Amino acid sequence: MKLIRFGETGQEKPGVELPDGKRIDTSNFGEDYNEKFFETNGIERLEKWLGSNADACAVVSGDVRLGPPVARPSKIVCIGLNYAKHAAESGMDVPTEPVIFFKATSSIIGPNDAVMLPKDSLKSDWEVELAVVISKKTSYVSEEEAMDYVAGYMLHNDVSERAFQLERLGQWVKGKSCDTFAPLGPYMVTKSEINDPHNLNLWLKLNGEKIQDSNTSDFIFNIPQVISYLSQFMTLLPGDVISTGTPSGVGLGFNPPKYLKAGDVMELGIEGLGVSRQEVVPFKKS
Amino acid sequence: MKLIRFGETGQEKPGVELPDGKRIDTSNFGEDYNEKFFETNGIERLEKWLGSNADACAVVSGDVRLGPPVARPSKIVCIGLNYAKHAAESGMDVPTEPVIFFKATSSIIGPNDAVMLPKDSLKSDWEVELAVVISKKTSYVSEEEAMDYVAGYMLHNDVSERAFQLERLGQWVKGKSCDTFAPLGPYMVTKSEINDPHNLNLWLKLNGEKIQDSNTSDFIFNIPQVISYLSQFMTLLPGDVISTGTPSGVGLGFNPPKYLKAGDVMELGIEGLGVSRQEVVPFKKS
Repeated sequence: MKLIRFGETGQEKPGVELPDGKRIDTSNFGEDYNEKFFETNGIERLEKWLGSNADACAVVSGDVRLGPPVARPSKIVCIGLNYAKHAAESGMDVPTEPVIFFKATSSIIGPNDAVMLPKDSLKSDWEVELAVVISKKTSYVSEEEAMDYVAGYMLHNDVSERAFQLERLGQWVKGKSCDTFAPLGPYMVTKSEINDPHNLNLWLKLNGEKIQDSNTSDFIFNIPQVISYLSQFMTLLPGDVISTGTPSGVGLGFNPPKYLKAGDVMELGIEGLGVSRQEVVPFKKS
Repeated sequence: MKLIRFGETGQEKPGVELPDGKRIDTSNFGEDYNEKFFETNGIERLEKWLGSNADACAVVSGDVRLGPPVARPSKIVCIGLNYAKHAAESGMDVPTEPVIFFKATSSIIGPNDAVMLPKDSLKSDWEVELAVVISKKTSYVSEEEAMDYVAGYMLHNDVSERAFQLERLGQWVKGKSCDTFAPLGPYMVTKSEINDPHNLNLWLKLNGEKIQDSNTSDFIFNIPQVISYLSQFMTLLPGDVISTGTPSGVGLGFNPPKYLKAGDVMELGIEGLGVSRQEVVPFKKS
């Protein structure tokens, strides 16, 4: 099943994208895709409900805006340097255990919304990533059991301001949390639909040129390892988002480095998880 | 006004502590102290409501558990090394701009709940801090206007596992986010009740011995500076918690360092913001 959310920013309604690409409005199910939904076996309940109600659901027109496929989570945890070549291009060692950092949840936008350069940004960069959504509360979970806590997967562009991240006194969160820096979606694909999350092509094009092109089989730490590891340091809650790191090809790794400017277009995708497209717009105070 | 939340973990009800120390149940006001409450001038509305309803509110018995005084925020942002002597005892330079990091919101507990040592923790440490609660959504706010976005203040113990924080591949969030690592309260004091937040004594006792003892006048970056600075990197939402850093006297700074063990008792306080007390308990898988 592919969960979507659609409509105006902050007013999104829940829906589902059917196998034939048709999108339907599941508002009548009465729940958003939030912590409570995942906590109470929402995926299973929604599937059952759709069995007898799908035909009565309104069709969502193709030109309606898509929002992030899940409601605002309690946290977005990201894994840094989880592809060896990306560690090398960043001038950093291949980590011996997962590097983790947070992104503010206020950075989340829909898959095709514009990415706004922050004020005085000179080094905004792209990062295609596979994001995992947690299904049930867990802490200190073993690698063997970790996949039982996965609700599904979605596409994430972990947009990053490298000067804020790396040149403003440590702690990467500073370059990861600007508004519009976390385009999610187009949809969240439920776990059962992805045969092997560790063998998915992922790519990103800047202005039509493919500059990230890898496969999740290149993860240094795989999904069960990441979930088990994280859960030693914090409780993971239903709906929490874990982003598994980006492969090589980010702007920081070019010689000379190459950063986003207004008018650029990022298109990205992961096999089975759809594609997204963000235009880069200049800073404007809201 | 002093906002409290009381009752069993996860089932807390809102209340108010009156000037005479009596606590009353404000459930009939119909709102928890969450994002929506702050966003919609909840403090002002509650004050008005209490004018005609306080006498009818049930009294909360003194032996009822206090929860965190605000509902789970969208984020807890912490300022690192914001007192010069603490930077020195940590072996770090005095920062030239604020150092920021996040704590997972799943670490929040009530002011007098037990702090549980994480599994295999050898270096858990204490940090008394003044936490600020944000009243209205803001980004790119000036220092001059920043105080308009403060709802109030509360006491926070930014419990930290130093090995997780400093010896496990960067990014402090790893040592800051364990369950029970953010005791908040006893209450959130509304802004108008604190004459000068930049002149408040704060202290922490370990097993009766005062080992942190300072004043917020020693901040390197004051509250307007911190809020304005943070808002350049992320949008602050109503109810968000900003913790302003700890003064010297943490375990890491002792020679040799001194860390928490089961049975230890931390008592801490800030002038005007009350006191809290946490017993340290051994790890136990829930």
